[in-house]
Amino acid sequence: MTTIAGIDPRTGAALAPVAHVTTTEEVARLTAAADAAATDLRRLGRLFRADLLDALAGAVEERRDDLIRTASQETGFNDAKLGGELTRTVFQFRFFADVVRDGGYLEATVDPASDTPMGPRPDLRRMLVPIGPVAVFGASNFPFAFSVLGGDTASAIAAGSPIIVKAHSSHPATSQLSFEILRDAAAAVCSPAGTFGIVFGTRAGADLVADASIKAVGFTGSLNGGKALLEVIGTRSEPIPFYGELSSINPVIVTPGAAAERGADIGRGLIASITTGSGQLCTKPGLVLVPAGADGDRLVEAARSAVAGVPAQTLLNERIYTTYSEDTVAVGRSREIRQVGTGRPAGEGFSVAAKLFETTVEALGDGVIDEIFGPVTVVVRFSADSTTTSVTRALDTLSHSLTATLHTGPEESDLTRELTAVVEPRAGRVIYNGFPTGVAVSWAQTHGGPWPSTNSIHTSVGATAIRRFLRPITFQDAPESVLPEELRDNCTQIPRRIDGVLRVAD
Amino acid sequence: MTTIAGIDPRTGAALAPVAHVTTTEEVARLTAAADAAATDLRRLGRLFRADLLDALAGAVEERRDDLIRTASQETGFNDAKLGGELTRTVFQFRFFADVVRDGGYLEATVDPASDTPMGPRPDLRRMLVPIGPVAVFGASNFPFAFSVLGGDTASAIAAGSPIIVKAHSSHPATSQLSFEILRDAAAAVCSPAGTFGIVFGTRAGADLVADASIKAVGFTGSLNGGKALLEVIGTRSEPIPFYGELSSINPVIVTPGAAAERGADIGRGLIASITTGSGQLCTKPGLVLVPAGADGDRLVEAARSAVAGVPAQTLLNERIYTTYSEDTVAVGRSREIRQVGTGRPAGEGFSVAAKLFETTVEALGDGVIDEIFGPVTVVVRFSADSTTTSVTRALDTLSHSLTATLHTGPEESDLTRELTAVVEPRAGRVIYNGFPTGVAVSWAQTHGGPWPSTNSIHTSVGATAIRRFLRPITFQDAPESVLPEELRDNCTQIPRRIDGVLRVAD
Repeated sequence: MTTIAGIDPRTGAALAPVAHVTTTEEVARLTAAADAAATDLRRLGRLFRADLLDALAGAVEERRDDLIRTASQETGFNDAKLGGELTRTVFQFRFFADVVRDGGYLEATVDPASDTPMGPRPDLRRMLVPIGPVAVFGASNFPFAFSVLGGDTASAIAAGSPIIVKAHSSHPATSQLSFEILRDAAAAVCSPAGTFGIVFGTRAGADLVADASIKAVGFTGSLNGGKALLEVIGTRSEPIPFYGELSSINPVIVTPGAAAERGADIGRGLIASITTGSGQLCTKPGLVLVPAGADGDRLVEAARSAVAGVPAQTLLNERIYTTYSEDTVAVGRSREIRQVGTGRPAGEGFSVAAKLFETTVEALGDGVIDEIFGPVTVVVRFSADSTTTSVTRALDTLSHSLTATLHTGPEESDLTRELTAVVEPRAGRVIYNGFPTGVAVSWAQTHGGPWPSTNSIHTSVGATAIRRFLRPITFQDAPESVLPEELRDNCTQIPRRIDGVLRVAD
Repeated sequence: MTTIAGIDPRTGAALAPVAHVTTTEEVARLTAAADAAATDLRRLGRLFRADLLDALAGAVEERRDDLIRTASQETGFNDAKLGGELTRTVFQFRFFADVVRDGGYLEATVDPASDTPMGPRPDLRRMLVPIGPVAVFGASNFPFAFSVLGGDTASAIAAGSPIIVKAHSSHPATSQLSFEILRDAAAAVCSPAGTFGIVFGTRAGADLVADASIKAVGFTGSLNGGKALLEVIGTRSEPIPFYGELSSINPVIVTPGAAAERGADIGRGLIASITTGSGQLCTKPGLVLVPAGADGDRLVEAARSAVAGVPAQTLLNERIYTTYSEDTVAVGRSREIRQVGTGRPAGEGFSVAAKLFETTVEALGDGVIDEIFGPVTVVVRFSADSTTTSVTRALDTLSHSLTATLHTGPEESDLTRELTAVVEPRAGRVIYNGFPTGVAVSWAQTHGGPWPSTNSIHTSVGATAIRRFLRPITFQDAPESVLPEELRDNCTQIPRRIDGVLRVAD
């Protein structure tokens, strides 16, 4: 039986085995258990799931030190990053408990029987119900927030869907420990046995996605990984939704006014943003449009000076390390792009130096700038007397992104409006005078965008992430006794639309 | 240039040509115009679109007689069916105008900047925005309600997405006339030129779906047609959502109590339901579970007697006519299934006799009962002392459906609850003591269900059909002046969630 073990990225040494590769038969047993759990979870109801989410939050918090220690060894992330991520994860479980209690996500709607211009209308009552068992693929770069304990898990459980996680090979011990914490906390509140499952190995992940019991897939990872899973879905007799968060360049645009007002601050902020999580964030700015001229020069100089002080950054695994090393060398060799700054030299293991490159809008073309995971960005200079044209031209050479960021000056309302119109079709979140790294878990968040940043019209972070794992059902002229509680006449605890009029909860 | 012409299904004779097959170059021009219109429509805003929808309703109503005359000749439907469908279509445009004015569909959400357990949160404002140009495939069986004038068109325009319709070959003149009415009404209120487009021919439909400007596809048609378009989408570099409404058997379950109380009424109602629209409805009951014994016999006898009085039914086109003829002969030849009733004999053109078949649960197996378009259904008898087991066994041999219907008796609350749990995972709408044909356009409607009835977690009828053509966007720390009206501080005309609390419009 092939064993699964992590690697210490600080040294490159293999760690102790933590599991074995999940067999096809084991996957089938797990999905059968998830199927059974789906029915039982449904019966236990919405408020049970809210309490379950709170219990998961508490259990994770209780094991904070173990989790951080385990993840630190496997990922090379420092304790501050891991601690923040764990806090976010615990918050996220509690947040989704609130979302479930609020009940607005159910979109409960009651159309009483009536006469309409179309003729008599029966009594119709609609709400969203769980889609069924969900497969979640953990990401390398967020061992907590986008893995076993992450947003896909929290939102699927909130929806009422059991989940089976494919553990990421960069942190198998963290994944296994996370799974055990969830499983035990769920058992303690008598959640069905198949509420949580975990599998290890690429083949097991493909088996999972192909399994008839799985009704949706949540994936955070590479474009190629996403495409491979989409191909597996193509072989199913029943197609299922695939929610992939795949690839993002996250352009940052600095206007002439912003460069004049605070170029140096923006330059320093940029380097802080591209080195968060060693630059291994799907929202890392990969391209920064800066005006030519003295104000822009000050921005670049501040960034160069800031990056010079950045210590060597440890990357997550050999693949990311190799890709970063090769891609940054390739970019640096290009005639049109020059390296203008570098961090402190790399040390042992998967450690690298941060890099800052510079080029001009004229040098851009399709595919010249692609996503590079790690602490690197490319500054692109443009002529300040044609900002909107230059920005449009630059963005036209890029793939669409999760985010777009505008740094604008105080006297640039018209330009800000123009640039907003340019970036809006190309991103799912538009940030003003800040940086895209850092994705708050909240009601209004969107973490999703046009292809290839995602392939979905939904978000994977924030309250509405729950919608991915729900489907609508309508009961027509149903007797009160068979209706879900939330659709009965006397339910006033949740927002509902009644005869076309939205009403808030009592 | 190959011309496009309909066929009179009452005689089988070709009608006058109405258009030519749209070329690849023409498709490209139409999508470019739709792309330009998307930006302009966005700028015109939400209330403009509400007025546009009202204008479309008025223009269609004004041309009622022309539309019905044209559609009658091409489809063989009687004026009552066509008139009802047109009324529904006009109502639907006005309904979506109300949905747009209500504004709840925007899911407007404001999270003011604040401190959270995760740290400081920026100001985040989320709403749904149009996805971009949409391709709509008209259905054969609803020349108005699911074609150029139909629900996909109304909901996409409501969302703010220009549309290009692929006209169905069963009613090209109706499609062309419908398009002209929409185009002229839109022009009269100064909607952008590319708001509506139309194409003719299978190749043009594939070109449309492959075009980079098209951002979603709405399709009502056959499983094979849907699969063919999904394959075209698979060849795109950017995947897009495909909302297919494909195939549905729509089981009806009659409990022992219902058969005892009103078996004969149910039998008569069943025949009325399967002959609505000559049985060419995606919600037509294709299988009816009826208890063995005298009460069930009375139901079958009433159905047999009712079907005997059903006049010959004209089907839409040669393909449906041939498939109906072949499939009903094949079912009738099966050893285990016997024909128990038939309507009046077929006449000329694509006319057929209605058919009633009967078998037992024991004779069912995977694929024995599939969807047959047209006025036919199969009664399946089961032992009354094992209702839930028999029903489950029967449904396990069927594909999932848009609808499931329960006829239950007054003393059967427990059984009704049990059967609800059995059918709920297999359908998108559950009807009690009625029939599934007839789909009201309303806030709470769901017209969608598990594969292969649809491949979507959304509905194609009802207010929430609009969600298919929208994507979320979040503005972070945006200056008020760049925000859409609906996200500004002082907007109180629509429901919004502010800092987690849902508020209704003023």
